Amino acid sequence: MTQPFSYKLLAQDGAARLGEIATPRGVIRTPAFMPVGTTASVKAVFLDDVKAAGSDIILGNTYHLMLRPGAERIAKLGGLHSFMRWDGPILTDSGGFQVMSLAQLRKLTEKGVTFRSHIDGAMYELTPERSIEVQNLLGSDIQMQFDECTPFPATFDEAESSMRLSLRWAERSLAAFAQYGRPGRALFGIVQGSTFPELRRESAAKLTSMDFHGYSVGGLAVGEGQRAMFDTLDFTTPLLPTNKPRYLMGVGTPADIVGAVERGIDMFDCVMPTRSGRHGQAFTWAGKLNIKNAAHIEDLRPLDETSTCPASRDYSRAYIHHLFRSGEYLAPMILSWANIGFYQELMAAIRKSIAEGTFADVAARVRAVYPSTVEDDAGADAEAARSLKSK
Amino acid sequence: MTQPFSYKLLAQDGAARLGEIATPRGVIRTPAFMPVGTTASVKAVFLDDVKAAGSDIILGNTYHLMLRPGAERIAKLGGLHSFMRWDGPILTDSGGFQVMSLAQLRKLTEKGVTFRSHIDGAMYELTPERSIEVQNLLGSDIQMQFDECTPFPATFDEAESSMRLSLRWAERSLAAFAQYGRPGRALFGIVQGSTFPELRRESAAKLTSMDFHGYSVGGLAVGEGQRAMFDTLDFTTPLLPTNKPRYLMGVGTPADIVGAVERGIDMFDCVMPTRSGRHGQAFTWAGKLNIKNAAHIEDLRPLDETSTCPASRDYSRAYIHHLFRSGEYLAPMILSWANIGFYQELMAAIRKSIAEGTFADVAARVRAVYPSTVEDDAGADAEAARSLKSK
Repeated sequence: MTQPFSYKLLAQDGAARLGEIATPRGVIRTPAFMPVGTTASVKAVFLDDVKAAGSDIILGNTYHLMLRPGAERIAKLGGLHSFMRWDGPILTDSGGFQVMSLAQLRKLTEKGVTFRSHIDGAMYELTPERSIEVQNLLGSDIQMQFDECTPFPATFDEAESSMRLSLRWAERSLAAFAQYGRPGRALFGIVQGSTFPELRRESAAKLTSMDFHGYSVGGLAVGEGQRAMFDTLDFTTPLLPTNKPRYLMGVGTPADIVGAVERGIDMFDCVMPTRSGRHGQAFTWAGKLNIKNAAHIEDLRPLDETSTCPASRDYSRAYIHHLFRSGEYLAPMILSWANIGFYQELMAAIRKSIAEGTFADVAARVRAVYPSTVEDDAGADAEAARSLKSK
Repeated sequence: MTQPFSYKLLAQDGAARLGEIATPRGVIRTPAFMPVGTTASVKAVFLDDVKAAGSDIILGNTYHLMLRPGAERIAKLGGLHSFMRWDGPILTDSGGFQVMSLAQLRKLTEKGVTFRSHIDGAMYELTPERSIEVQNLLGSDIQMQFDECTPFPATFDEAESSMRLSLRWAERSLAAFAQYGRPGRALFGIVQGSTFPELRRESAAKLTSMDFHGYSVGGLAVGEGQRAMFDTLDFTTPLLPTNKPRYLMGVGTPADIVGAVERGIDMFDCVMPTRSGRHGQAFTWAGKLNIKNAAHIEDLRPLDETSTCPASRDYSRAYIHHLFRSGEYLAPMILSWANIGFYQELMAAIRKSIAEGTFADVAARVRAVYPSTVEDDAGADAEAARSLKSK
C-alpha cells in the first residue's frame, strides 16, 4: 500500500514547529529547506551531494520544465525523478510566478495565462487545469495550485481581485488534481492577499475550507521587505490548520528563515545558496563572506571549519579565491555545494533546537551573524508607500 | 627514507611497454594518461573523481601558476599538492610552450624569454634557472627542462638552432635542478628536432648523455599531423634508454595514444577529455558522440553502459542533452568527468593488454571507432611542405 501524504507535528517551541511530512518517496523533516532544481538541475551541484548535505526534497520549476525539455517529453522519459536521478520527493510550483516574471506577451484572463516562451518564442497557455496536468506529467510529489502571485506593492482593490482570482483557480486546481487519483501526491493551496490582514483572512478561510494537503504563503519575498513579510506572517500563520504543513515560497536569507520558523512556517525554498555560490558569496556559521575579496588571497582556513560539508571543510579560502579569480568551473561548484551544506546545517540546527526547546538560542546565534534586515527595510517600506500613493 | 624516483619495465608487447614509475607520492602505472590541471584545477571535475577514475598523476602548468596565484605564493601556502588537494604525484611543464603561445611581447634570447602576462600585463622573465625554481616552489614531482618547443613547420636550419638552444638550456636546467637536492623529485629532458631524423638523433644523443630521470618527446602535436608524428616517433623512441620513462607531450586522441604506445611511449597528457567535455563531445568505447545533437533528445541510454565511471553510466543521454541545451553547469561537469573516466579506462585496457600480449587487439578495437587520422593528414603535410617552400 502506498504511503499516503501526511504531516505529523512532533514538537513546538513557541510557534516554531518540528514535524515530519511522510510521502511515498520518503520523509521530509521540517522545518525543511528545499534546494531549487530549476531546469532539472540544482545549479552546479551533483544531486548526490545535495542529498548527502541533508536535503530531503528538492524543487522543480514547472514553467522552465514545460518549455524545455517539455512535460510530455519528461513523462515519456519516465518522469522527472528518473530523468534527473533524484529518488526523494520533488515539489513543483505552478508556473504562474515565472510566467509573470520571465515570459513575454503575457495575457491574463479568467481562464488562465497565455504567453510567449522566453526561450524560442513559441506561444503557450497555462491554466489551473494545464498547470496541474504538467505537474502530474512531471510526477511531482507536492504540487501547487495555479495562482497569481500578487505583485508588490498593490492597492487593496488590486490585491483583493488578484486574491479572489487565485481562489477561483484554487477550486479549479483541486478539481483537476482529483482527476489524477495518484495516492500519496499532494496539492497545496496558496494564501494570497498581499500585506492586508483582511484579505489574508479571507484567502485563508476559503482555502482551508477546501481539501488541500498543505498551505503555502504566497506573494511574499517580492520586494515588501523583511518587516512587512514578518508582519504578514504574524497574522497569517495563525489562520492555517495546525495539522498540515506550511510553506513560505521563495524564502530566503538565514535571518528570513529563522524569523519565519519563529512564526510557524515549515518549508522553504530559495535559489540564494546556489545563486550566491556562483557569485562568490559563502554562507557560514560566522556569517557571509565574499570569497573574491582580496582578504582571502592567502587565507588557509576552510570556509567553515565546524562544517560537516566537504565543500566547506576541505578547501582553503585561498584556493577557492584563486579558482574564482581564474574563472574555473570548480569555484561555483565548491561554493554552491558549500552553501547547500550550510543551509541544511542551519535547518538541522533549527530542528534540533525546537526538539530541545532552545530555538531562541539558535535564532540568536543566526541573527548575531546574519543581522535582520528589518531596519534596512524602512526605506523599502517608505518607497512602497510612496509608490502606492502615486497610483 | 624517501622513495627515490625510479622506472621499472614490467612487460613488453612489441614496442609497447608496461611499467611503473615509483615516486615519493605514489606509483604511476604506465602507459599513463595525465589529466591537465592547468590553473590548479582539472576543469569542471572534482579531484576525488579524477583520482577514482584511475588517474595516478595530474599535470600543472608552470606558466599559468607562476602568473596566478604565483609560485612564491603557492610555496608559502604549502605547495601545489596541498593547495589543490591532490596527494598523488604532479608533473609540471617548463612554462616555455605556453609563453610562446599565450604571452605577449615575447623576446627570446640565449638567457631565456621575457614576456608580458596575458592576465595583467606585468613583465616576467623565464629562464632555465627560473623555470626550475618555479617548479620546485610548486613542489612538482616530475619537472621538465626549460626548452623551446620548435614551431611547425620549421626549416632544417630553424629546427637545428632551436634544438641546440634547448640542449644548452637542458644543461642549465639540470644544474639548477641539482641545487634543490630534493630526493625523489625528477627532471626530464626534452628531445626536439622537429620531424628531422638527424636532429632528433643529435638531441637524443646529447640528452641521454646527461643525467635526466626520463625523456619527453617535444615539438609534436603542434600541427604536423598524425602521420608525421608517428614517423618521428618511429625513429625517435629507439634512441631513448629503455630504463627510463618516455613522455609524449600534449597528446592526444585515443588513436594518437594507441599509436604512440605502439611506438614505445609511456606517458601522455592532453586537455582533450576536459575541453571536449565542455563542448558536448563524449568519448566512449563505441566512439565519440556529440551529446548536443538532436538525435539524443529522447535517448535513455547512458553515455556508455559498459563504463565503470558513474558519469558515463548513471545519466541518460537525454538528460545530458537537456543540460547542455539549458546551459547548465552540470553538463560540462558530467561530460568532463565521463571523458576522464574513458581515457583512464582506455589506459587500463592498454596496460592489461600489454601484460597479456594482446595489445594489438585493444589497438584494433580503438581504431575501429576512433579512425586514425593519418590519411586525413595528407592535406596537412602538403600544406606544411608548401609553407616551408615559401619561406
